[in-house]
Amino acid sequence: MKKKANNMVIAQSGGPSMVINASLVGAVLAAKKAGAKIGKILGARHGIQGILGRDYIDLRKPTAKKLEAIALTPSSALGSCRMKPTADDCRKIFEEFKRLDVGFFFYIGGNDSADAARIIGEEAEKDSYPLVVYHIPKTIDNDLRSCDHTPGFASAARFVACAIKGDDLDNRALGGVKIDVIMGRDAGFLTAASALARTNKDDGPHLIYLPERPFSLDGFVKDVQAAMKKFGRCVVAVSEGIRDEKGESIGARFAGGEKDSHGNVQMSGTGALGDYLAKYLKEKAAVKRVRADTFGYLQRSFPGVASEVDVEEAGMAGYAAVQAALLAAKGIDGVPVKGTIGIGRAKGKTYKPEFTALPAQAAAKFTRSVPDKYISKNGHDVTKAFIEYVKPLVGDLPHCEIF
Amino acid sequence: MKKKANNMVIAQSGGPSMVINASLVGAVLAAKKAGAKIGKILGARHGIQGILGRDYIDLRKPTAKKLEAIALTPSSALGSCRMKPTADDCRKIFEEFKRLDVGFFFYIGGNDSADAARIIGEEAEKDSYPLVVYHIPKTIDNDLRSCDHTPGFASAARFVACAIKGDDLDNRALGGVKIDVIMGRDAGFLTAASALARTNKDDGPHLIYLPERPFSLDGFVKDVQAAMKKFGRCVVAVSEGIRDEKGESIGARFAGGEKDSHGNVQMSGTGALGDYLAKYLKEKAAVKRVRADTFGYLQRSFPGVASEVDVEEAGMAGYAAVQAALLAAKGIDGVPVKGTIGIGRAKGKTYKPEFTALPAQAAAKFTRSVPDKYISKNGHDVTKAFIEYVKPLVGDLPHCEIF
Repeated sequence: MKKKANNMVIAQSGGPSMVINASLVGAVLAAKKAGAKIGKILGARHGIQGILGRDYIDLRKPTAKKLEAIALTPSSALGSCRMKPTADDCRKIFEEFKRLDVGFFFYIGGNDSADAARIIGEEAEKDSYPLVVYHIPKTIDNDLRSCDHTPGFASAARFVACAIKGDDLDNRALGGVKIDVIMGRDAGFLTAASALARTNKDDGPHLIYLPERPFSLDGFVKDVQAAMKKFGRCVVAVSEGIRDEKGESIGARFAGGEKDSHGNVQMSGTGALGDYLAKYLKEKAAVKRVRADTFGYLQRSFPGVASEVDVEEAGMAGYAAVQAALLAAKGIDGVPVKGTIGIGRAKGKTYKPEFTALPAQAAAKFTRSVPDKYISKNGHDVTKAFIEYVKPLVGDLPHCEIF
Repeated sequence: MKKKANNMVIAQSGGPSMVINASLVGAVLAAKKAGAKIGKILGARHGIQGILGRDYIDLRKPTAKKLEAIALTPSSALGSCRMKPTADDCRKIFEEFKRLDVGFFFYIGGNDSADAARIIGEEAEKDSYPLVVYHIPKTIDNDLRSCDHTPGFASAARFVACAIKGDDLDNRALGGVKIDVIMGRDAGFLTAASALARTNKDDGPHLIYLPERPFSLDGFVKDVQAAMKKFGRCVVAVSEGIRDEKGESIGARFAGGEKDSHGNVQMSGTGALGDYLAKYLKEKAAVKRVRADTFGYLQRSFPGVASEVDVEEAGMAGYAAVQAALLAAKGIDGVPVKGTIGIGRAKGKTYKPEFTALPAQAAAKFTRSVPDKYISKNGHDVTKAFIEYVKPLVGDLPHCEIF
């Protein structure tokens, strides 16, 4: 690497989360601490679009106080995009990086953003442009293969668990069936986390449906009828990504076919799936009062409910990415030049995260699902092992009391 | 009044709120403090249904600690119902009250519950059954004519303002139009409170539509296009109760015609209105990215976001009702035997509530709308006067920072 190209660009991509700004600030703090090893710290607005459009923020300028407040603010403070870079886009990016003497590029996001970072890294290698590229993990879906859990997930899970806890109390008061549709196109982790709402033995959610198990409308009606018989009421947590017996997404039928450049069908931002299930249930299960809510974007953006563990770890992931990139620039063995930060869980009784530098492809493109061990045999609940997995990440919920 | 009938029954009715249990506990604490003037303190489960079905909780039993936790728990801890008592129901209620020596009845709820309490009071008078009946105000809709603001409103408003604040940050990151549908069948107070989300001059909500002004689809498209031109994005807060130029509810078209015994069409628990507006906008306004969320029951039940002022005042309203009922039982001049607690606002710079005993019909049946002085001239925003009205009730929101 040329010594001169020590400026860095950082950007955010994909769906926002409650803690993606904590990762941004973690990376900025690590870069500031690196002294002369890093020159300019530029935030590109709206992901790689900001590089192509030369739209930056000088991240050395904000005060420590301002950065701290940004870290605790939901959504992506630099703006976001959903864009898969073409080879041609990459050429333009490298021209811009050359103009600015950029040697480090950090991209905070989920598997699609990891894939974008991987593509940029590989194209840079082809062009012999000396670039250290790190992906910093973020996704409320918790579906990166490189992470025990992903920054953003635990805070969204906390919102979901709180919402279900309150909604279950609401259902207790007025009865009937309540259906709550929860985010997660392919992985059911967030829907599964609704189980954290339970304290008393008859607390909801009484049924939990994940995309990992086929969803049958007939089975759904039977499950609800059984729950109504047992509890006199029923709260249902259902993933927006549930699929029928043929593996086809049920929600996608109502989604209008809008796709992003990574090929993902737009699912959130509509109440159609919940309304469909409520209507079906009213007709087939002879339940008088059926209501459906779709939690929507609140799950990833509601201020003031973030998990403390999540905020801290998101910051550490950003910090670790910059540290790893500096080691990679020095040519340290085993530290990838095109990397991502893996998050593991230390063995032992007390929860403790572990951060490691992994090759970028570990997070890119392909996702993971909720493992079998976390799904109950009946297919509509989670196991104790899942609760043990998720509880230390989410923390305590507000205490609620019933008579 | 016979001296013997000094037992009390208290119940909750209508839609739950985050602080209706605070009113319940306030009333219980006042009753306990009244010494021998009140005998048994019975909580009827699911409103007057619990009286008809002889389903009670002994509210002298729970510890102070348990009561305190109940007060901070969302939803109606005694259960709720939506039932307008017939004359025949009233006869059965008085038989039951006679059996239990009940001289005091408290009903916590909105205008329909106030009306139920009024009916019970009037029927008791007809039957010469000696009963002091007090309605304790509660409604997230803030539409009781007897109150400057109603317990439950400020906490729901706080949820709405937080949700819009987060969602506006989300919209900042990814752009396009975001439509958020907010509760309020007839009154737009809750939707209006979304304006509290604004801190920076380009913060959303950029458009606020209340049921108090006719909603035209053409006007909506034009308003959104103007906002897109000005801000490059647009966050819309729209009441579920918006009406067309003929005064007909737009949301009711999708609601399936379900009605309660007070004649109210069921509006919440469906995403249809938001989806309809989003589809219309996509087709007519040529905006690529349009999303809609319906906040639904979370607005009234989410734990941990209640307004402190609201919790305190809800407790005071319950407390005041029992105190007024005791004075009425003593025959004190000007204290109604069939009453409701009015909540006023003391004059002066510092916000301070005032509680008064009013005749039951002051709260019953008819509701109030958002006054003209709180709605901006263009019909799609609120005035400074509204912000001054609502801010002391809701309190500070979590601080969010942007670059």
